[in-house]
Amino acid sequence: MNILDILDKKEKREKLTKEELKFVIDGFLNGTIKDYQMSAFLTEIDLLGLSEEETIDLTDIMLHSGETIDLQIDGIVDKHSTGGVGDKTTIVLAPLVASLGVKVAKMSGRGLGHTGGTIDKLESIEGFHTEMTLEEFKNQVEEIGVALVGQMNNLVPADKKIYALRDVTGTVDSIPLIASSIMSKKLASGASKIVLDLKVGCGALIDNLKEAKQLGSLMVKIGNMSGKETVCVLTNMDEPLGFAIGNSLEVLESIQTLQGKGPKDLTQLVTKLGAIMVSLNSKISIEDASKKIQENLNNGKAYEKFLTWVKAQGGNIEKIQTSKHKEEIKSKEDGYISHINALELGKLARKIGAGRLTKEDVINPKVGFVLNKKVGDKVSKGQTLITMHYDDLKVEEKEILDCFKISKTKVKENKLILDIIK
Amino acid sequence: MNILDILDKKEKREKLTKEELKFVIDGFLNGTIKDYQMSAFLTEIDLLGLSEEETIDLTDIMLHSGETIDLQIDGIVDKHSTGGVGDKTTIVLAPLVASLGVKVAKMSGRGLGHTGGTIDKLESIEGFHTEMTLEEFKNQVEEIGVALVGQMNNLVPADKKIYALRDVTGTVDSIPLIASSIMSKKLASGASKIVLDLKVGCGALIDNLKEAKQLGSLMVKIGNMSGKETVCVLTNMDEPLGFAIGNSLEVLESIQTLQGKGPKDLTQLVTKLGAIMVSLNSKISIEDASKKIQENLNNGKAYEKFLTWVKAQGGNIEKIQTSKHKEEIKSKEDGYISHINALELGKLARKIGAGRLTKEDVINPKVGFVLNKKVGDKVSKGQTLITMHYDDLKVEEKEILDCFKISKTKVKENKLILDIIK
Repeated sequence: MNILDILDKKEKREKLTKEELKFVIDGFLNGTIKDYQMSAFLTEIDLLGLSEEETIDLTDIMLHSGETIDLQIDGIVDKHSTGGVGDKTTIVLAPLVASLGVKVAKMSGRGLGHTGGTIDKLESIEGFHTEMTLEEFKNQVEEIGVALVGQMNNLVPADKKIYALRDVTGTVDSIPLIASSIMSKKLASGASKIVLDLKVGCGALIDNLKEAKQLGSLMVKIGNMSGKETVCVLTNMDEPLGFAIGNSLEVLESIQTLQGKGPKDLTQLVTKLGAIMVSLNSKISIEDASKKIQENLNNGKAYEKFLTWVKAQGGNIEKIQTSKHKEEIKSKEDGYISHINALELGKLARKIGAGRLTKEDVINPKVGFVLNKKVGDKVSKGQTLITMHYDDLKVEEKEILDCFKISKTKVKENKLILDIIK
Repeated sequence: MNILDILDKKEKREKLTKEELKFVIDGFLNGTIKDYQMSAFLTEIDLLGLSEEETIDLTDIMLHSGETIDLQIDGIVDKHSTGGVGDKTTIVLAPLVASLGVKVAKMSGRGLGHTGGTIDKLESIEGFHTEMTLEEFKNQVEEIGVALVGQMNNLVPADKKIYALRDVTGTVDSIPLIASSIMSKKLASGASKIVLDLKVGCGALIDNLKEAKQLGSLMVKIGNMSGKETVCVLTNMDEPLGFAIGNSLEVLESIQTLQGKGPKDLTQLVTKLGAIMVSLNSKISIEDASKKIQENLNNGKAYEKFLTWVKAQGGNIEKIQTSKHKEEIKSKEDGYISHINALELGKLARKIGAGRLTKEDVINPKVGFVLNKKVGDKVSKGQTLITMHYDDLKVEEKEILDCFKISKTKVKENKLILDIIK
């Protein structure tokens, strides 16, 4: 068996055996298969797909590429967002459901494509660290109900290495690669129940509902086959989530949301996902769980849990840095916002330093954008549409304005929850 | 412009502009685009193709990625074989046509996929070197009529770097990549006329006649558009060319051929290609040119020119190393050879050290195979089909026998010249 034959077999659209998939993953991990060969393989999968059976095989191989953990804690419900522009869901949701007794033992990743990573965002809080031993991780979950780590090296090492390569080779939007990446991590990390937040729209990895349903069903199938109750919620990512895009800006917005003063869409999303998690854990109805969620957003308990969590991981909430400069971009016309191109805004944010283009790039946590308007909002000429927070790099006003479509007639706001797959 | 957007555009099957193609090639050369990103791009081209216009643009960009040379010598006819298993055409043809007044100023490459490279083969002659300055190259062509160099770093540097990557990422068989690679080098190296030997069959980069005609027409078009008279000969590569596979073994067979004692197919091929080259150069008929070729194979003049050439490039013809061990593989049945799988034999030769799997691999010049039988030959049980020449690595008898198909009924020998495109 050698990598050139496998690349050739895939090019000929032949089905790969589990042994062949394992040969590739093992070889990439031990270095006999090089970065440039793996990226050719990933590009083939991106363009030609994998069968359901190959995807299940791949997930299983990745899952067993390292250790798997069992924290031996009851009531762990894992949650995963597929990522989008302005997606700070985890930062709000983790302490929120923890404040209602759900145990959150979360592994997160770094930036992928034009979307930011939860760890990058949390690290904009001075001192916040996500490196800890399994023992420390377990203790923290037991003590305060919530802990978040980077992917541990010994857990699904295959995914960590593949994820870094996909990020810089345009292969982040492949359904089988997304499914195997997400599910191998979820299955390795020992949760008994899994809630997936699958973003759909121009700012997400998947931009159409048909593919999203396919991916969602595939992941739910893999999860349930492995004995973990799995629910997948399809949510809108056509415009950015909330107002803020960029690492520290998103943390600040998360804090507002945890204090009951967050943007409508973000609040609605964490309420829905939180209610499903609480309901899976405690067997109360979704409606009752929703009420409890709203209570804890308004009575300070969710925010209190957030403070406890940040402190436990070394963060100093008083020290969130902000950018040197701000520039308000104003509307040139009257009307209603009909579209905000999340993808392009995500790319502009990356251009000014909020994201990565190659593995070696360093993120500037302070920069980004804050929207003043969302889809459906009325806007007058001269009103601020968005504010650019920047240090040394900036983009032209025109590039930013091009992300907005303004209609003369009234526009409905976007529907947030598109489907739920169980 | 950035590489992720271009990868994404290509994935969406959109046509790339010349500026975008130039951005990729320039970025890869200056290191801002990484190996793993370029291999993703090459894989996309391999799977999705390029339009004729994109291919012509790409060739032009590669051609101008470095210097172009004009040796200011009349009568240079360049020849290029696309490579196959046992393909030692250049080693025979260069001194052969030089002995008839054609000036041969040849740039060659190293091993690509399962096929060997001319330079690797010539370097199995002790002392033979292919590094020389442009001045030395020019002088040698003027003095003895033939010189062969590795690709000069300043000439089509884009191709040198891309070629190394294609070799190890399964992207050697892409029509637009082959066309742009070959033609950029041919156009940069200053020949006034070009003869292409395009191999077709299971041991070549292109295994079907339809694609070969497409590639041949594309290259002839690019050549003629650039004012160079170009002829493309499509030749059979279903079974290995000649008897020998492996670097020093092929040099020894080339010597026999130059002495008029070579295998029938190889002799026929160099006669046909040589006649076209001589005829393009001197305007005599193909038939007359063929006669002169045959004369010089038999009267020692071709071999004499070979000796002069090898000496000029530092080689010691007395010192061609051979392997430590030999093993004869014998037929298990009576019949007629109906197929010899050149591709699989090429891979087996690579396995025992005659070729490369990654850029870093070192070739063993001494090992390989020598056929005793060709397609159409009668064979009896117990007769030797092929001899394995090996040092430390060997392959199983069964793997070798699997490359042969033996029929009970008579079989015709393969047709060698399949088509000529002008």
